[in-house]
This record gives sequence, C-alpha cells and structure tokens, in this order.
Amino acid sequence: MEAFLKHAASLKPKIATLSPQEKSKLLLEMAQALREKADLIIKANRLDMQYAKEISLSLAMQDRLYLDSKRIEEMATSIETIAKLKEPVGRILEGWLTPEGLRIEKVSVPIGVVGVIYESRPNVTADTAALCFKSGNICILKGGKEAHHSNHSIADILQQVLEKNRLDINIISLLPDDSREGVSKLIKQDAYVDLIVPRGGESLIRFVSQNATVPVVKHDKGLCHIFVDESAEEENAIDIIENAKCQRPGVCNAVETVLIHKNIANSFLPKLHERLISQDCTLYGCEATQKIANVAKTNEESFNTEYLAKTLNIKIVANIKEAIEHIQTYGSGHSEAILTQNYANGEEFLNSVDAACVYINASTRFTDGGAFGFGAEVGISTNKLHARGPMGINELTTYKFKIYGQGQIRG
Amino acid sequence: MEAFLKHAASLKPKIATLSPQEKSKLLLEMAQALREKADLIIKANRLDMQYAKEISLSLAMQDRLYLDSKRIEEMATSIETIAKLKEPVGRILEGWLTPEGLRIEKVSVPIGVVGVIYESRPNVTADTAALCFKSGNICILKGGKEAHHSNHSIADILQQVLEKNRLDINIISLLPDDSREGVSKLIKQDAYVDLIVPRGGESLIRFVSQNATVPVVKHDKGLCHIFVDESAEEENAIDIIENAKCQRPGVCNAVETVLIHKNIANSFLPKLHERLISQDCTLYGCEATQKIANVAKTNEESFNTEYLAKTLNIKIVANIKEAIEHIQTYGSGHSEAILTQNYANGEEFLNSVDAACVYINASTRFTDGGAFGFGAEVGISTNKLHARGPMGINELTTYKFKIYGQGQIRG
Repeated sequence: MEAFLKHAASLKPKIATLSPQEKSKLLLEMAQALREKADLIIKANRLDMQYAKEISLSLAMQDRLYLDSKRIEEMATSIETIAKLKEPVGRILEGWLTPEGLRIEKVSVPIGVVGVIYESRPNVTADTAALCFKSGNICILKGGKEAHHSNHSIADILQQVLEKNRLDINIISLLPDDSREGVSKLIKQDAYVDLIVPRGGESLIRFVSQNATVPVVKHDKGLCHIFVDESAEEENAIDIIENAKCQRPGVCNAVETVLIHKNIANSFLPKLHERLISQDCTLYGCEATQKIANVAKTNEESFNTEYLAKTLNIKIVANIKEAIEHIQTYGSGHSEAILTQNYANGEEFLNSVDAACVYINASTRFTDGGAFGFGAEVGISTNKLHARGPMGINELTTYKFKIYGQGQIRG
Repeated sequence: MEAFLKHAASLKPKIATLSPQEKSKLLLEMAQALREKADLIIKANRLDMQYAKEISLSLAMQDRLYLDSKRIEEMATSIETIAKLKEPVGRILEGWLTPEGLRIEKVSVPIGVVGVIYESRPNVTADTAALCFKSGNICILKGGKEAHHSNHSIADILQQVLEKNRLDINIISLLPDDSREGVSKLIKQDAYVDLIVPRGGESLIRFVSQNATVPVVKHDKGLCHIFVDESAEEENAIDIIENAKCQRPGVCNAVETVLIHKNIANSFLPKLHERLISQDCTLYGCEATQKIANVAKTNEESFNTEYLAKTLNIKIVANIKEAIEHIQTYGSGHSEAILTQNYANGEEFLNSVDAACVYINASTRFTDGGAFGFGAEVGISTNKLHARGPMGINELTTYKFKIYGQGQIRG
C-alpha cells in the first residue's frame, strides 16, 4: 500500500505539466472509450448484478448498481461536460504589490493526491476520475464491493486512454486493497495522500473521520428543516414543503422536520396535512400538532432521524427563536430554510443559523452543484473548513502564493 | 471538559450578534485594560520567570517568556492594530443569480470554536484572543506550562472587559486542564470544537495531527531552500542568502539549504562562503562543495534538519531539475526560492515546486502575515487545505451560502 501511494504521489508533477487543452482532449477520449467499450462494462456489470441478487441486495441498491447502454451514454456525456468546464487550475485568486515591490499572486493549484471512498453507483467512478483529472489531481478510488467488476471495468478503460497517451495509468487508480483494512491504511497515509472524501453511510463517515490523519472533507447526512413563519405565504409554503420532502425523498437536501409558527398552525396545518397525505407521506407531530392533525407522536429520535423517505416531523413553535434553537440542536449544518415575508425575521434566520446553506423562501432541494450552477458536482460538504456546501470543481483545488521579486531582502 | 466545551460552543450565537463597531470598541478596551493592569501581569510573570530559573529553562526561552512594561505596551498596541482591521465577517465573497432566479451569496462567517495550542511567549495569549474575537470566534487557549501565571493574568484582564460589558467571559478562555491529557481530550471534541491550531515543537504538532478528530491547521516546521541558478546575479544572490539565513535564523522562513548550479559554483561558492563565515555561520556541503570550500560534510540528516540557527547546507546540483527534485524530497512545503534571470527556469520553478510560497529573486524571509500586508498574523499554515502559507484574520473565517428566493421549488 505504501509503495502504491508513494508512486501515486510521485505522479503529481506529471499531471501538473499537462495543459488545459491536453486534459480536455484526454477526457473527451475517455468519454469516447466508455461508449465504444460499453459492452465490456455491461458484461462486468452483469457479474455485479448476479452477486447483488445472490446476496439479496435491496431493489433500490440494485437499481443504483445497474448499468445499460443508456446509463453508460450518460456517463460519457458527463465526462464531456467536465472536459468543457473552465480550467480550475491557475486561476489568480488575488494579487497585489507589497510596499517593498514584491508582486504576490495567490494562484489555484491542484490539491495533490485525493482519495475518494464511495458506494454503489458505478458512474461515480467515471465522474470522480474525470473531476480529479480535470483539476490536476491524482485520484485513488475506493468503490463499493458490490460494484467491484463494474468499477474495475470502467477504470481499466480510463487507464487505457492514459496509457495510449503515454501517461502513467496510476494517475487514475482503484485502491488495490479495497477492504475496510485497506481504507484504514489509506486514511493514515498523510505523507502521500492530501485529501480523503468519504461519501456514503454514517458508519463509513464516522470511521473515516475518527481514524484519518489525512484531512477529510465529509459528505455527511443532511438533516434539514423548514421554518414556516407567521407571515409566510401559505399556499407557496405548502408547495415548497411538498417539493422539499417528496420530489426526491432519498437525498440529503430533502427536509425532515417542518417547524410551524403557533399563530398560523390552526389554519396552515390542516392544509399542509392534506397535501402531504395525498402524496403518501407519513407524518409525525409534536403534542400541539396532534391537537390539530391526526398524526403519530414525534420523539427525540424522530427529530434526529434522516428519513430518506416520505416521512416528515412537524413541530409547532412559539417564535423564530424557538425555531432557530431547534435547528441548532438537531440540524446537521446542511440546508435550512425560513419561509417568511418579515424582513427582520428573514435576516435573523439567515445570519444566525449555522449551516452550509440557509434559504429564505425557497426549497432546500436547491442545495447541489447543478442547481448552484457549478457545472459538475464533486459532492456536498458538511465540513466547515476548506469546502462547505455544494462543491464544484474549483473546490478540488487549493492555492499557493507566487512571489515575484527583483532581489528584495527583508529589512 | 465536555461541559466546558459545550458551554463555549453555546456562545457562538452571542458573539455573532456583536456589530463590527462593538467588537472594535471591546478590543480597544482590552488594550487599555492590559496597559492599566501591567503591574499585575508583571507580578504574575515574575512567578513564571522564577520557575523558569528553577527548572533551568534555556536563556532564549527565558527571554521569550519575559514581560516588562515595554512588552506589555507592545501587546496593547497589537490589540489596537487588530481592532482596526477590516471586518473579516460578512464579506460577500461571491454572488450570482441562478437560472431560477435564486440569489446566492457566498458570505464569510466565523469558524466557531477555535482551540489554539502554543508555547512560551505570553503575548500570544493576547494576540490570539484578539484575532479570534475580531473574527467572531470563541477561542480556547492552551499556552505553555512555563507561562502559566502570565497567561492567566492576561486572560483574566481580557475576561474582565467582557464581564464589564455583560458578555460571557468564556468567549475568551484558557483550557481548564492544560496537561497533555487535557489537550488530548480537546482535540477529540469535534462536536463542540471546529478547529485546532497547534503552534509549537514538532512533537506537539505530530501528537495533535495524529490524534485529533477536530480539523487541524498546522504551523509546522519550515525547511526552506534557495536555488541559485546559473543566471543568478551573484552579488544579489549572496545578499539574499545572507538575509534568509542570518537576519533571524530562529524562524520558520529562514533558509536551511542552498542549492547551487554547477556551472557557477567555482566563482560563486567562495564568495558566498566568505560572506557567511563573516556572519559566523556554520556550513555543511556536499562532496562537490567540499572541493571548492572548506566545509564539513552534509549527510541525509543535514538535509532533513531545520537548524533554527546560523547553520546552512550547501549542495551543488547539475540543473534546475535536480534542484526541484531535492526540494520535493526534503522541503516542508513552506517557502522555496529560485534566483535566476532565466524566464523559463523561473516559470518552471514557480509552477512545479509544491509549497505554500514560491519565490523568484527574493528572500524567503518575506513569508509572513506582516510582510504580506495582512495587518496581523494568525500564523503560517503548512496545511494544504483551508489556509496555506501566511494566515491573516480572514483565514479565521469560513463561509456559508445565503440563498434568497421568491418561492422557488425544484423542477
């Protein structure tokens, strides 16, 4: 493992010498290679699907795993989109002259060696490899066991493009030992690995966070809230809550708990209840909610649960202060929204709530790289440092200072 | 410890409600309070000095520890400088409209609870507290045992100002258990602490990096190089090397190894040798160097040593490629310089060398917040993520996205 990572780290200068044009050209070749070799990928995927059935993987997981020519075409198109993104390396972020006449430039540079740990969907292999390549990083991918053959097939095809262009294939590689023990070693190799991005279940994220000595940017759970203030426009509030809960319940920016100002509960709650029940939602409510709508009782556990399903908690609160306190207690710092027409309350919410994304009068579902206009998404960070919230390709870079002198010495 | 940190974390919204004006006013009061109570601080410092003598602390360390009214005046002035810095919170870093008409603002916000671990100099207590306060962070300070009384006296005075202004004194606090075990607990409290900044010896930094679950921004060693290329202006190169080694040898941006292009070694090296010997430097050299100048032999260990003294390694290299390879092998990613009049070599060096600061034709001694024009320095980060190189007060902030809608739902 150490030799493998040392070799990977040694490739950093290699990828750094590729021009933006060369990187784009290689990515377009990779997209084309995936298309041309779709049969090989599908063949490998069938082995994974067979294993998935043998171990009775859930149907939802099987669907995530499954590849056909349409999905491979999407994978190729996604790489082409990434190829065409604006070059993330070499942006001059700031620049100034010091009193001594030194010209300082703060310039974006690749992070170095990036390890990405993920699950199920094999398209993440192609996407992540492309994002890292575009941003000049060496990537080490560790996909799920269930996608073993698919991931290897995809990585092989990408590596063949590197080889054909006389580049070291380990610029993009799969972690050779993809057991938990392999991960355990990877996350401690801070001499060679510059960043670990774990995407997946809570236990994986916790394991990585607790044991890594390499810096970690987490893609943790999203426990999001919507606070319906007294002055909210009721019809729109119902649309937004329905959207935030039902449009794609299995994602991290879906809402889990709605907080309702007590002064509007009597009129608003029955309408919200009706709409959500019509969408097959399961509702839980606090005692005050139960007095107005026929719902099961919430408890401490409900408020801590990311349902990833059409299940929603409802709590009636006395005022914005109580709403913010509830969010600070139970929120995961991902996306939080207030629906209000009151200026002061809107400002208070946006300023006080400590989360990556804070919304006024919009659905929390907009938290992602696509909706933010980043072109391609690396993920959604629940870290506070380096990258917070939706991560675009620029967040796969760091910076260095270039200092241009004319012989200056320090006085 | 947990209760203490939980309380500290609970104060985040309190400090967030202070206006820039209020924060500045409080800082100016703190500066004044330190001046007025200088006698108390000096009295406390004498206890530390007595203990320092008892345990035979080195004279250099005793000097760092020592406080008198002049040094306390400097401490107060430094807080006043920080008070007048441009407000680091609430800067709109970027902003745009999405196709759906959402207005997204990327806004700087405090990091939250910041733990700073440092040694000897008691002025760091005042400085760090002021920097954290100005940037809206709750700080938990852990100074050296040898400065125990001085640090407590300074912190007490700052806390009294908070108290007088009806603020919770734990907005600025010293870690209650300042043993290694206390540190050990602190760095694992990721539920309450958002960032740890260790500043000090290698063993402390290693311990923190290996054991923290809280994100760490390190202030690690500086093993800096200067490469004198064939086309360097010799007289200026000698001035720069003398400055980088001798002006303040005990700091992290001083040079430890000079690499000399073989084509100029015969003419350049004797002049450099003469200048450095006249400055009482101790020189080590590679075999080729020894053929030209009378110096002791370098070895693997020399190249890995941050001398923090007037000691310097000299190595003759065949070309820029060998120079860069040497730097990638032994450098600590802090500050690296090339002295050259050759455009292509300058570009190659600035682009290829993976360090926080890369220089052309200037002394590495410029790597710090002051010289960079940041007004006040938090430290010099050897991390690649979040903050790299000189850290100003802006690097004590992170960001969040504020999203302003008019009822948008995701399609």
